[in-house]
Amino acid sequence: MKAQVLTRYDDDLRAGQWVDLQEVPDPRIEKSNDVIVRIGGAGVCRTDLHIIEGVWRPHMDPSGDQLLPLIMGHENAGWVEAVGKEVEGIKVGDPVIVHPKISGGTCLACRRGMDMHGPGRFPGLDCNGGYAEFLCTSERNIVPLPKTLAPKEVAPYADAGLTAYRAAKKATRHLLPGESCVVIGAGGLGHIGIQCLKAMCAADVIVVDKSDASLALAGKIGADKLVKADGNEVEAVLALTGGAGAEAVIDFVGEKGTTAKGLAMTRSAGSYYVVGYGEDIRVPTVDMVITEKNIIGNLVGTWAELVELMALADRGLVELTTVEYRLADANKALQDLNAGRIHGRAVLIP
Amino acid sequence: MKAQVLTRYDDDLRAGQWVDLQEVPDPRIEKSNDVIVRIGGAGVCRTDLHIIEGVWRPHMDPSGDQLLPLIMGHENAGWVEAVGKEVEGIKVGDPVIVHPKISGGTCLACRRGMDMHGPGRFPGLDCNGGYAEFLCTSERNIVPLPKTLAPKEVAPYADAGLTAYRAAKKATRHLLPGESCVVIGAGGLGHIGIQCLKAMCAADVIVVDKSDASLALAGKIGADKLVKADGNEVEAVLALTGGAGAEAVIDFVGEKGTTAKGLAMTRSAGSYYVVGYGEDIRVPTVDMVITEKNIIGNLVGTWAELVELMALADRGLVELTTVEYRLADANKALQDLNAGRIHGRAVLIP
Amino acid sequence: MKAQVLTRYDDDLRAGQWVDLQEVPDPRIEKSNDVIVRIGGAGVCRTDLHIIEGVWRPHMDPSGDQLLPLIMGHENAGWVEAVGKEVEGIKVGDPVIVHPKISGGTCLACRRGMDMHGPGRFPGLDCNGGYAEFLCTSERNIVPLPKTLAPKEVAPYADAGLTAYRAAKKATRHLLPGESCVVIGAGGLGHIGIQCLKAMCAADVIVVDKSDASLALAGKIGADKLVKADGNEVEAVLALTGGAGAEAVIDFVGEKGTTAKGLAMTRSAGSYYVVGYGEDIRVPTVDMVITEKNIIGNLVGTWAELVELMALADRGLVELTTVEYRLADANKALQDLNAGRIHGRAVLIP
Amino acid sequence: MKAQVLTRYDDDLRAGQWVDLQEVPDPRIEKSNDVIVRIGGAGVCRTDLHIIEGVWRPHMDPSGDQLLPLIMGHENAGWVEAVGKEVEGIKVGDPVIVHPKISGGTCLACRRGMDMHGPGRFPGLDCNGGYAEFLCTSERNIVPLPKTLAPKEVAPYADAGLTAYRAAKKATRHLLPGESCVVIGAGGLGHIGIQCLKAMCAADVIVVDKSDASLALAGKIGADKLVKADGNEVEAVLALTGGAGAEAVIDFVGEKGTTAKGLAMTRSAGSYYVVGYGEDIRVPTVDMVITEKNIIGNLVGTWAELVELMALADRGLVELTTVEYRLADANKALQDLNAGRIHGRAVLIP
Repeated sequence: MKAQVLTRYDDDLRAGQWVDLQEVPDPRIEKSNDVIVRIGGAGVCRTDLHIIEGVWRPHMDPSGDQLLPLIMGHENAGWVEAVGKEVEGIKVGDPVIVHPKISGGTCLACRRGMDMHGPGRFPGLDCNGGYAEFLCTSERNIVPLPKTLAPKEVAPYADAGLTAYRAAKKATRHLLPGESCVVIGAGGLGHIGIQCLKAMCAADVIVVDKSDASLALAGKIGADKLVKADGNEVEAVLALTGGAGAEAVIDFVGEKGTTAKGLAMTRSAGSYYVVGYGEDIRVPTVDMVITEKNIIGNLVGTWAELVELMALADRGLVELTTVEYRLADANKALQDLNAGRIHGRAVLIP
Repeated sequence: MKAQVLTRYDDDLRAGQWVDLQEVPDPRIEKSNDVIVRIGGAGVCRTDLHIIEGVWRPHMDPSGDQLLPLIMGHENAGWVEAVGKEVEGIKVGDPVIVHPKISGGTCLACRRGMDMHGPGRFPGLDCNGGYAEFLCTSERNIVPLPKTLAPKEVAPYADAGLTAYRAAKKATRHLLPGESCVVIGAGGLGHIGIQCLKAMCAADVIVVDKSDASLALAGKIGADKLVKADGNEVEAVLALTGGAGAEAVIDFVGEKGTTAKGLAMTRSAGSYYVVGYGEDIRVPTVDMVITEKNIIGNLVGTWAELVELMALADRGLVELTTVEYRLADANKALQDLNAGRIHGRAVLIP
Repeated sequence: MKAQVLTRYDDDLRAGQWVDLQEVPDPRIEKSNDVIVRIGGAGVCRTDLHIIEGVWRPHMDPSGDQLLPLIMGHENAGWVEAVGKEVEGIKVGDPVIVHPKISGGTCLACRRGMDMHGPGRFPGLDCNGGYAEFLCTSERNIVPLPKTLAPKEVAPYADAGLTAYRAAKKATRHLLPGESCVVIGAGGLGHIGIQCLKAMCAADVIVVDKSDASLALAGKIGADKLVKADGNEVEAVLALTGGAGAEAVIDFVGEKGTTAKGLAMTRSAGSYYVVGYGEDIRVPTVDMVITEKNIIGNLVGTWAELVELMALADRGLVELTTVEYRLADANKALQDLNAGRIHGRAVLIP
Repeated sequence: MKAQVLTRYDDDLRAGQWVDLQEVPDPRIEKSNDVIVRIGGAGVCRTDLHIIEGVWRPHMDPSGDQLLPLIMGHENAGWVEAVGKEVEGIKVGDPVIVHPKISGGTCLACRRGMDMHGPGRFPGLDCNGGYAEFLCTSERNIVPLPKTLAPKEVAPYADAGLTAYRAAKKATRHLLPGESCVVIGAGGLGHIGIQCLKAMCAADVIVVDKSDASLALAGKIGADKLVKADGNEVEAVLALTGGAGAEAVIDFVGEKGTTAKGLAMTRSAGSYYVVGYGEDIRVPTVDMVITEKNIIGNLVGTWAELVELMALADRGLVELTTVEYRLADANKALQDLNAGRIHGRAVLIP
């Protein structure tokens, strides 16, 4: 099959031609529960740039370039091409989206539904992913797509969307009418998060962003109140919440000072959700005690949560803006992403 | 002041002139936290008819007519007329809605926020209520109204609305996208419940009613699927839920067979919420074990939940249809209610 | 291998010789995740008598004796004898206890950790079980045993114990110090339930039973208060709970009037847990509304819950009284159970 | 009455004679719900030393010595001496413990049972406390004592104990058999926390402390595993938890590096509870995301939680070691506390 292969790291992201279109062996069914997916869409994610520049090298490739050559692509959707001999309920030709983590299914974390906290593999990060014609994954990763949804339109939900969904869902389990939820950062993830919040609770959604365009989009998809991140955003949020702050603050940025600001926007007994990352959180213990705030970490969602997110998408309650590139143009997509030229999410199509 | 006074029971509801407009002494501040409310609207509720026909006599008036004369009216809103000398934060003239239960505030139930499970009084049922110019209640019962809401438009939220809200809220704490919630009965309470569900979760709301008009209204206010209660409603709901039933079923009827049907519509591990009442629930223990269903009782909501409901109303997320009658025309309102001539909720205004 | 085989139903349980010791083919690994367990202990359960007398025939064997011959036995523990070629982390010789439901692992219920609510098989009920030398099950059903626990000592935990644990666990998630939990029936399941409650919460445990011996045992294993079921047990429980009833009532009997009594012992806003079965629950809707009680169905626990229960057993926090019979003496064990001659749980050993 | 009065701050805690025994006016009932308590025991707390050295001055006394003279003492128990004219259910002579926060009872936080998050006063910190013969508080702060408990034996539960209880209770709502809870610091609060954990869940309790005496005590009151804080405590905890860390870590120290160590001991998807304070928490956002940990702030408990804690004490499930000093010897108690000479908690008695 054809695949875009990463063969060397590029620390300063200057090369531009990071992946090579190569003919590689087709993946084959090896285990009885394996499933091969013909890729209909593969999301191009900032994490891919981080892989290229070696950010993940210490974690994934500690002994040096053992991981390469690697086919990236961890946000995949397509059609079932072949199934292992013990796979049930999944037929060749079914449209599907692929949960990003291949988990074993037998550890305690998996058995409690928390797949992403057990051992496993992460195609596109530590084994071959979806920048290709085909992907080998497991029955456990396959979520059938409703008829309303085409693979290339939903691929980025597999990781980016699922992460935003999980954080928003956690908040909605507590948020009540009359309460507020601040969303910091209305970009790719934040944009999904806002829609999930509006669909799943009646709290006021206050969106904080430094970009007027992002704020305008946030307003269009349902944000109740918009706050320009102009240096006075903490004061603005406090003013909108009676001086007390919001019961929930979801930070999709996690750098350039948003953590301190996000915590300052959080009401006593409220929760600050960390999704974006970059800087350190620094908070005095005495403040945590006096205010009784919670700081909640957030990973990608569970398989069941991907089913839930597809239910939202199926009903038109969340929508995604995508920009399509041919698989052959993967470097162009990565360049555009690196240059900030993509609005919405880039998706590689066959 | 003027008040409509109930002076005798009428077992078969034939009299028609049940309450008399009398001049009675104005209520006076007696305790330091008392609040007197000038009534702007008093909801006329089926419970009032039940009081008249003596349904509540065994509970409220066991030694015989000691309770009478009684001023009915347990769904009250208006403006603060006077406050006790230790009342803080409530000013004369404030528009308010009155939580129906006067609770003491010091028992364990109250201190956990579950006011309605502690001892207390219930104006309009066991002491004088709001079919009058003024009502004496406590600081603890007062919920300030947002500027967008007029007392006469919201009075029925005080009890009917609050009960529907609480049941719907319980369900939304569990319901997830892709799951279903059946509402049996789209009348006064059901109609509020549907709107609360749509505002507070992303589950599919399936409404079951035998009235085409009620179903049409349900569709207008957001119900996702409508099922005519024509004898095949269980099969219809099963068909809409892949054969498995709904994760939540809220029964606002509770008689004429809805309990057995409601349970049959409930999925394994799902919950059936009892709000309406009349018949007995009868279910084999073995069915409860095999299906692991829950049957959840529902009382009126807490003070905090009335605040939450007012937040929904303030944002236009729930709306109430009311029919106004002058206080002097209370018997007319009760007659119309008894005859099934009221669409929405009757409210007595000054 | 040798197995005790049920070849015909016996409606009135008079035959006495219900199972025949036969030489049958050894089970074989068929799927890549199959596991064969050499039986070290197989619990003999009242459900086995119900199978014999045909109680389950309408559910399991509707077209008539298709299910027979059947090897019963759904509470199994032993040692791993063989594993399928894709089984990981389980080695031949490992001591194990077997979760009673063979679930597929890919449906939404399984993926949320609620195995017992998805499709699957139940060895000993709808396919061959553990009244034999060997049992074929799946990797998904295997729970490794801590070194402190021998298979023959723990087999009855697989179903009876796991059911009691799940109900008790649900109650402990809510019970607080100063609150009360009533246990109706201190027999096989109740006895485990009491120990789980004492280990997992600080509520007062009030045990209701008609047998002095059972009450004495309950006291020995930690029950705080004992109530003889002599017809005044409701009054006795109310007296012990300040007149209000208990926050939780777990009914391990479910017949002969315990459901009405159990509900009467339940406090407003409290929960009544149905575990034992036999009679119908009958409760007026108005009572459910006024008291806001919950009726909670209870099925066998999840795989993860069996792990939790084994952790309790490993620490000596729950203990089980067993009576051993040779596999060859299965009829004797069934007869003794039927005659009420077994104290604790009967277990078949090789 | 006699009271020990703080008249000046002492930045370096050198004076030794910090409070003066003075004759001051008796407190008087001013509001209809006031209650005057004759002090039977007043806990002497490290917070009192912090008040003396001015740590709280910026918060409580920003415009300079306006707060002084102050009667300290925020952990109070005794007998009811007088009640306001609208107080119900509390009689003169009743033994009581006093919740430390005087809350209004009408704000949304109070109405949801979260008293300590609404506005209010804190006797002993921002108004006169219990280093005296009498204390004026409110009906809302009074928790009746069971007959088994004497005021002077329980006074420190009012704040120190209640804080430890709340943190432990939060953890027990999640902890399951087979899981672990680390307690960092087995001093005054930790010692209560350990007993609450053992009473309310079946998780393994691992206690980390640098003092052999504290570890020995922890073992005596039920800790399952003891870890000396000798620099390798993180490794030791990981070894005890299969390399993964504990599902809950409660940090009663919060300084000298325990925050980083506590987080390192916390398992993925687990929670780190901050109770002790002193240093800053510093954690990379990326770690919060990858591990999905939670950092949970903890304040003093609610009124209802003080009732729960008294239920534990009444049943002998928590015990407190106290050292008694006469009110006249308050300076001696404070000196001994400052010098580390008190094992358990110091209590002033009449």
